Amino acid sequence: MANISDILDGKMDGKEVEIKGWLVNKRSSGGVQFLMIRDGTGVIQSTVHKDKVEKNVFDDTDKLTQESSLIIKGIANEDKRAPDGYEIKIKDLKVVQLAEEFPIGKKEHGIEFLMEWRHLWLRSPRQIAIMKIRAEVIKACRDFMDDNGFTLTDSPILSGSACEGTSTLFETPYFSKKAYLTQSGQLYVEATIAALKKVYCFGPTFRAEKSKTTRHLTEFWMIEPEVAFADFEDNLKLQEDLVSYIVKKVLEKRKRELGVLGRDIKPLQEVEPPFPRVTYTEVIEMLEKTKFKLEWGNDLGAPHERFVSLKNDKPTFITKYPTKIKAFYMQPDPKNPDVALCADLMAPEGYGEIIGGSQRIHDLKLLEQRIKECELPKKAYEWYLDLRKYGTVPHSGFGMGVERVVLWICKLKHIRECIPFPRTITRLYP
Amino acid sequence: MANISDILDGKMDGKEVEIKGWLVNKRSSGGVQFLMIRDGTGVIQSTVHKDKVEKNVFDDTDKLTQESSLIIKGIANEDKRAPDGYEIKIKDLKVVQLAEEFPIGKKEHGIEFLMEWRHLWLRSPRQIAIMKIRAEVIKACRDFMDDNGFTLTDSPILSGSACEGTSTLFETPYFSKKAYLTQSGQLYVEATIAALKKVYCFGPTFRAEKSKTTRHLTEFWMIEPEVAFADFEDNLKLQEDLVSYIVKKVLEKRKRELGVLGRDIKPLQEVEPPFPRVTYTEVIEMLEKTKFKLEWGNDLGAPHERFVSLKNDKPTFITKYPTKIKAFYMQPDPKNPDVALCADLMAPEGYGEIIGGSQRIHDLKLLEQRIKECELPKKAYEWYLDLRKYGTVPHSGFGMGVERVVLWICKLKHIRECIPFPRTITRLYP
Repeated sequence: MANISDILDGKMDGKEVEIKGWLVNKRSSGGVQFLMIRDGTGVIQSTVHKDKVEKNVFDDTDKLTQESSLIIKGIANEDKRAPDGYEIKIKDLKVVQLAEEFPIGKKEHGIEFLMEWRHLWLRSPRQIAIMKIRAEVIKACRDFMDDNGFTLTDSPILSGSACEGTSTLFETPYFSKKAYLTQSGQLYVEATIAALKKVYCFGPTFRAEKSKTTRHLTEFWMIEPEVAFADFEDNLKLQEDLVSYIVKKVLEKRKRELGVLGRDIKPLQEVEPPFPRVTYTEVIEMLEKTKFKLEWGNDLGAPHERFVSLKNDKPTFITKYPTKIKAFYMQPDPKNPDVALCADLMAPEGYGEIIGGSQRIHDLKLLEQRIKECELPKKAYEWYLDLRKYGTVPHSGFGMGVERVVLWICKLKHIRECIPFPRTITRLYP
Repeated sequence: MANISDILDGKMDGKEVEIKGWLVNKRSSGGVQFLMIRDGTGVIQSTVHKDKVEKNVFDDTDKLTQESSLIIKGIANEDKRAPDGYEIKIKDLKVVQLAEEFPIGKKEHGIEFLMEWRHLWLRSPRQIAIMKIRAEVIKACRDFMDDNGFTLTDSPILSGSACEGTSTLFETPYFSKKAYLTQSGQLYVEATIAALKKVYCFGPTFRAEKSKTTRHLTEFWMIEPEVAFADFEDNLKLQEDLVSYIVKKVLEKRKRELGVLGRDIKPLQEVEPPFPRVTYTEVIEMLEKTKFKLEWGNDLGAPHERFVSLKNDKPTFITKYPTKIKAFYMQPDPKNPDVALCADLMAPEGYGEIIGGSQRIHDLKLLEQRIKECELPKKAYEWYLDLRKYGTVPHSGFGMGVERVVLWICKLKHIRECIPFPRTITRLYP
């Protein structure tokens, strides 16, 4: 069995090939049928000439419906007239299954229709391209980590305490107890730095948020590196290197897929360290003259993020948010404890936040004080506080949402296309 | 900042180094203090000579408690007397934090005690070795897949229908609906084969089983490849290649860690394709003369699996189980529909099942019939049945539990040590 990708790469020229795949579409002209065939590695034009095949082969071809599964034998050849420069001249064709009328046709479908048929919609060239890019982004993340001395230590999905309140948590009965689905694996990777220094977790995370936006999923994948003895600066450097590496790898290996999406790759080619920075306070000042004006101390929303995101060709760090609007574990700036040693990374082209990170509080007393100020249940943090009793060290980390990175790199409009089977407030099927 | 691993690899000989890490333990002899220091990349002996350092450095060293965090400067040197052949002669030492008395000492602790302190227990040499091997197993899985033309298509964790009954499912309110935590991503990867031919998902899966054994976790990671146009034989071949690759990579890169665990690597070196096979029916016959005697048609349990597992030095396939005790989607053998084209892979040395897989039913009518026979709710499988209407093809796949592979490769007694934060019926903390 040959792969269509090998033929398109020019490796099978003049050779007899057998391809197992699906019919994407078909047209006929005179005594020739033109079939576009997909095998999961690519799509290729294949021709059936009435006067060159057995009658039953031509008749079978004539009956073929969209997405029918088939096995063809023929000769692969370069052919400048074919859409991708190569073609198979079919000698024999066997129908594996004549497909029922495919619900997704060439006409425009509404998004709810497509989501309902997601299990079939995934076969479209556009969705295939996105899935390949998503896989490449994930591979790049893991390769970067593994090549840079990080050890994967997966955080648990189920946890017994609702650390930051139950309002956005999914909850499940757990034998005689209650368990919650993780919103972040960070606290757990903080535990493994003392064993392995540079660690990361990478798994699905869950937010039961009622927000219905183009950038939120209830279930999404997040990579969360954490590094012992790393400060705020080290943390930003690591983010720049990781994001640049991902973009470089996608450009290197998924140019064809970016082309399918019509993605202008110029802006992506700009992405290399260092990334520009702006403080939260500077952002507030810049917003002063706009209609998105905001008082210092309020959290930035989507329009503010978008404003910053459009300022630069590269991703931009917004640093040092007010301590009181950020998570309790973020290290206040020793020079100005009203702001935290944190940063959110804004993807360019209007995409907004893809990473949130910070230096963590390593001092036990300060951490206890922050837990109290934030009115969090100290009991739930017992083991986390232990980490500050037994050889605490300064450390930093961040969380990067995979689907948001895919959204930006593919330049899509909605995050629901960035994961094979999206979960949103209204979508739990298929 | 240097890494201890670089010193132990002989790269820093005679050089001045700065190490940031933790005190593993300490002893003193005459005017010399011997510190074992861990930095997350390794452990090295470091010495403080009373007559060669400032008085305060020696005094600080004297006060150091187990797991205190510290920064040392000194000269790295080969030293045959040191436990790992290298040593640091400390010139300067800064205490980052004097740790409180560490709860885990040198004496034996009960397992419940250690599990309660899992966040600290992870710092022990044995747990570090296991975590590094787990990370290597996962990297090997992903590299193997990516290098062999597979595309990662993550299956969702949350799903709206309880396909195989709710008794072993975790359930969560999902806005106005109910959702269930996945037990397997298989049905979803079956949907992506038509788009990408060779695919896999790799994520956490959940079983709310009440079984309290040494081989069960309620939350564990599973890799599930699925291949279009692959039959029963192709499926076994893929499993042999994957498992052999994983073992080879761990032997190549984690020999030191296997040594820490005292793992005899000889049996691991035997692991290469092909793996021996035995049919379910043959197993029943072999059991006839043992105390584990079983009637044909009953499922194999742990003792039967162990019996087969001990037969060979390599992993062993048990093939063709009775159709009626296996999942509804498994293809019955056309030559004898009473058995399925399935196989479970038994790790050797008594470890039992690490993989379960099969050719899948691709015929719509047969699949509908099996759903009916198994008294499953057809409505829940609507989208899954669609896959058989629109270009169905023969296909096969399997699921491999990561922690069970780690259990076997590390030759451990209990699976709870094979994941950073294990979840069992009685364990949801930390």
